[in-house]
Amino acid sequence: MSIEREDLGSGTTSKEMTTKQNDSRFTVDPLPEPEKLSGCDWLMKQSHLDLLIVFLAECIGTGLLVFIGCLGAVENDHYKPSHLSVALGFGLAVMLIINIFGMVTGAHLNPVVTLGAFIYKLVSVPTAISYCLGQMLGGYLGYGLLRILLPISDNGFCVSQPTIDTAKAFGLEFMITSILMMVYCGVVDPRNANHHDSVPLRFGLTVTCMALVAGPFSGGSMNPARSFGPALYSGVWKHQWLYWAAPFSASLITVTAFRMIFYKAPLDQRNPETLPLNDKDDV
Amino acid sequence: MSIEREDLGSGTTSKEMTTKQNDSRFTVDPLPEPEKLSGCDWLMKQSHLDLLIVFLAECIGTGLLVFIGCLGAVENDHYKPSHLSVALGFGLAVMLIINIFGMVTGAHLNPVVTLGAFIYKLVSVPTAISYCLGQMLGGYLGYGLLRILLPISDNGFCVSQPTIDTAKAFGLEFMITSILMMVYCGVVDPRNANHHDSVPLRFGLTVTCMALVAGPFSGGSMNPARSFGPALYSGVWKHQWLYWAAPFSASLITVTAFRMIFYKAPLDQRNPETLPLNDKDDV
Amino acid sequence: MSIEREDLGSGTTSKEMTTKQNDSRFTVDPLPEPEKLSGCDWLMKQSHLDLLIVFLAECIGTGLLVFIGCLGAVENDHYKPSHLSVALGFGLAVMLIINIFGMVTGAHLNPVVTLGAFIYKLVSVPTAISYCLGQMLGGYLGYGLLRILLPISDNGFCVSQPTIDTAKAFGLEFMITSILMMVYCGVVDPRNANHHDSVPLRFGLTVTCMALVAGPFSGGSMNPARSFGPALYSGVWKHQWLYWAAPFSASLITVTAFRMIFYKAPLDQRNPETLPLNDKDDV
Amino acid sequence: MSIEREDLGSGTTSKEMTTKQNDSRFTVDPLPEPEKLSGCDWLMKQSHLDLLIVFLAECIGTGLLVFIGCLGAVENDHYKPSHLSVALGFGLAVMLIINIFGMVTGAHLNPVVTLGAFIYKLVSVPTAISYCLGQMLGGYLGYGLLRILLPISDNGFCVSQPTIDTAKAFGLEFMITSILMMVYCGVVDPRNANHHDSVPLRFGLTVTCMALVAGPFSGGSMNPARSFGPALYSGVWKHQWLYWAAPFSASLITVTAFRMIFYKAPLDQRNPETLPLNDKDDV
Repeated sequence: MSIEREDLGSGTTSKEMTTKQNDSRFTVDPLPEPEKLSGCDWLMKQSHLDLLIVFLAECIGTGLLVFIGCLGAVENDHYKPSHLSVALGFGLAVMLIINIFGMVTGAHLNPVVTLGAFIYKLVSVPTAISYCLGQMLGGYLGYGLLRILLPISDNGFCVSQPTIDTAKAFGLEFMITSILMMVYCGVVDPRNANHHDSVPLRFGLTVTCMALVAGPFSGGSMNPARSFGPALYSGVWKHQWLYWAAPFSASLITVTAFRMIFYKAPLDQRNPETLPLNDKDDV
Repeated sequence: MSIEREDLGSGTTSKEMTTKQNDSRFTVDPLPEPEKLSGCDWLMKQSHLDLLIVFLAECIGTGLLVFIGCLGAVENDHYKPSHLSVALGFGLAVMLIINIFGMVTGAHLNPVVTLGAFIYKLVSVPTAISYCLGQMLGGYLGYGLLRILLPISDNGFCVSQPTIDTAKAFGLEFMITSILMMVYCGVVDPRNANHHDSVPLRFGLTVTCMALVAGPFSGGSMNPARSFGPALYSGVWKHQWLYWAAPFSASLITVTAFRMIFYKAPLDQRNPETLPLNDKDDV
Repeated sequence: MSIEREDLGSGTTSKEMTTKQNDSRFTVDPLPEPEKLSGCDWLMKQSHLDLLIVFLAECIGTGLLVFIGCLGAVENDHYKPSHLSVALGFGLAVMLIINIFGMVTGAHLNPVVTLGAFIYKLVSVPTAISYCLGQMLGGYLGYGLLRILLPISDNGFCVSQPTIDTAKAFGLEFMITSILMMVYCGVVDPRNANHHDSVPLRFGLTVTCMALVAGPFSGGSMNPARSFGPALYSGVWKHQWLYWAAPFSASLITVTAFRMIFYKAPLDQRNPETLPLNDKDDV
Repeated sequence: MSIEREDLGSGTTSKEMTTKQNDSRFTVDPLPEPEKLSGCDWLMKQSHLDLLIVFLAECIGTGLLVFIGCLGAVENDHYKPSHLSVALGFGLAVMLIINIFGMVTGAHLNPVVTLGAFIYKLVSVPTAISYCLGQMLGGYLGYGLLRILLPISDNGFCVSQPTIDTAKAFGLEFMITSILMMVYCGVVDPRNANHHDSVPLRFGLTVTCMALVAGPFSGGSMNPARSFGPALYSGVWKHQWLYWAAPFSASLITVTAFRMIFYKAPLDQRNPETLPLNDKDDV
């Protein structure tokens, strides 16, 4: 859900690279440069291997999100979780998955977060596609594993559904995804570069908060991958479009506007032409 | 809810500036100096643009606070949130909004927090007015949006109301706002300058705690903007004075007294005249 | 609940001072030296003023702890808090009070924590007495204010009482206070000197955990000041001895043993005689 | 649950040592070298003393985990904890014990975490045996103390038991232990070396999350020591094998695979032969 390492071998312009270097705060070591490939270079190019690792990490991460989150909603004759428990399950799942994969991919776990990262020029097109493919497959596998392991009779179990009318549910999903994406913009802002220790907790509890307040009305998905997996496995497609249209439009509009209005480039990137020319050698 | 960037173009004395530079810990880069305006200088002066950005951030932030917090209290036939859920909703909302706007304005979200910042000389008069106007408008818009999106029949929904007699409710609101402002004083204290990573969590959970213990008796508002928006939209003005008089008097008295008794200026600002004169050139 | 600034003017030996300097991690600036007194030196000596500030901070802090914690347990016809809510109220109260007074006194709020600090040589005898007097008075005032503000009919409200037989309750209070003091030992350990940002959260949630699991059986006080105030105001002294004997013996035995077995002095204080003599000039 | 100090006197190869030095992030001072033994060297060798301290810390830590966690599940006529309260009790217990013993042993509290540390080459064989012996004894003593202090009539109280069929419970315990171990891999990853302040909170809330979502179905143990102690004391061995086979196989497979796929050695250890030879003297 935060900052991720970019594969250097893709088609990113030099200008994008500068921004990325300053933003990659969850990763402490830069990637090896392409010409210094290690033992696996006979197998595939480093950049392809990186795309595969990104795919794997997002696939497992999103799988865990759906598995843990939906597991927390399973009820039987002896136990019925409260809505607070379900919301805590989803949020703490996000928290722990950022712990696991934050240093690998930033743990987006969500195609609209990847869209936000793309707007902030933190991922290139091929990487973003790796992310999203992994997320979609992960959501399906995580839900499938849950259905195999747990005795769940309700076929539409954990499929996102609104309880209010569709237009208002669209508005509510738009709002909460917009809030989620603003939190993402806050996390990747250069001014917060030194405040990353508790990011997993803060992002996870943001998800808990949104699921807690909006879940009973709009479903509280904010995540097409989380909604797609269960729908595909169950074959329940009613209202599915809602959980694609609302988050994607919310992410596109919110991140673009937030970046335009509230983003500040780090000082050393502002007005570089005003620096005295004789300093250039030292840069 | 914390420290905010000050607009340099306003009528702040040089003495205030020194304090501010040392206290602005949530912002990692200083504002560009007035003479280096970027492309928008033909449109308006940088300082006016900054006031507008502050206004926008506080307006959106306070709007989200009322929207999320009150959304967490909506009940229908199938779902009735526990008081703990409602208190968590309000507190985690504060937590996530500090994540979003902490690096822009400090995310005051509350006129009495802005009053506290003014007493600590962290904001100038024009900036404080920007903050408060944004907060009042935001509270109204956030509540209005909620009423439009959710089917809420009770017209006085989420309007702050005491359940104990007014004098005691005044005392209780005074107490909890006083506690909130002491936490604010702790956050901006120079001795805590290196402990800001988990401030959003700590401030948010402070709000949860106050709302949890005092909410059922005094309403647990601590915030005129949060109480004003719903009252204006609903036209329910009963006890409204309480949620202005108690927080403002609590903030004024508490912050003044706390600063006088417990504040310590950073070491490099104490007794500056004892520094050897030949050091002055290097400062 | 953590590390506190020591008044330099009291009867502390030079050896104690060395330890203290290394441990005072919550305070970023050292105290002014005695000869550089500011404007109040005509009124009283700096060391006396410091004792008074310590007294005030611990008095207000412990007052807030009892006020907030017991307020969270008040019930009426419309609202009955769950045990989880009450435990969260107490723990988050500790969390926010450490935010307020952590940089002033370390926010002990508890005579047995002060005893632990004394065993770790972090406070001198006169300071420890200031702490404890403030804590006892604060517990009484906080409870008194609550009784005045809220309509509480039960005279023994919020007075610590066991529900299991006295010997077992003694054992349980001993155990949970022992755990609390081990957490304190962990916080002040030099090896954790760089991990203080989330101490308020961790200490507060420790109190929540202990109150949550032990509260229904032994009362879960761990704190003579928290138990003394309500008892004095209400005149209900039954089992009061339990809430003094168990915490004090637990703190004395646990902290002494933990320091002996698990404490490691910082590297620069170990075997100082093995340093080459010519390094002494640079120290 | 995190990184632990290694005893230098044991049979660790030089290659292991390099890794360990880079990973020991919870400890701020290195161990004294063997030839500089302090006063106890007449009693036993430093390395033996360290093994004993490790044994003691893990024994007390695991004892507290079982004591606090199971105490949170005790019910009587007046009080029946919710499942959320029980899960919070276990998770916050882990959180506070990492606070206590994190800087001593890393607070594994769980043989399969020690297995993971062994796979990551963070502990040697003799140290790992010390850890596990301490954990097994601690689980027994912590449960025994609880049974002595609290009036518990149910003999099988707090013994891990599945409520779904055994094969599925095996799968679920495998999954949640696998998740726990991936979080461990994230914590010890060199790329997270500067994000350790809130590790106790994050690891504790991970345990809360797993216990919350899986507890009602598979028992949610993830820890042979936590399951063994109650079983030994109660003599209830049904399904005990499950709580050994699932966690151990999960830890072995998950940690091995995660390290192979997602681990990155710190930059200064990669391709050391590419460093210019004349730098070797300075290393």
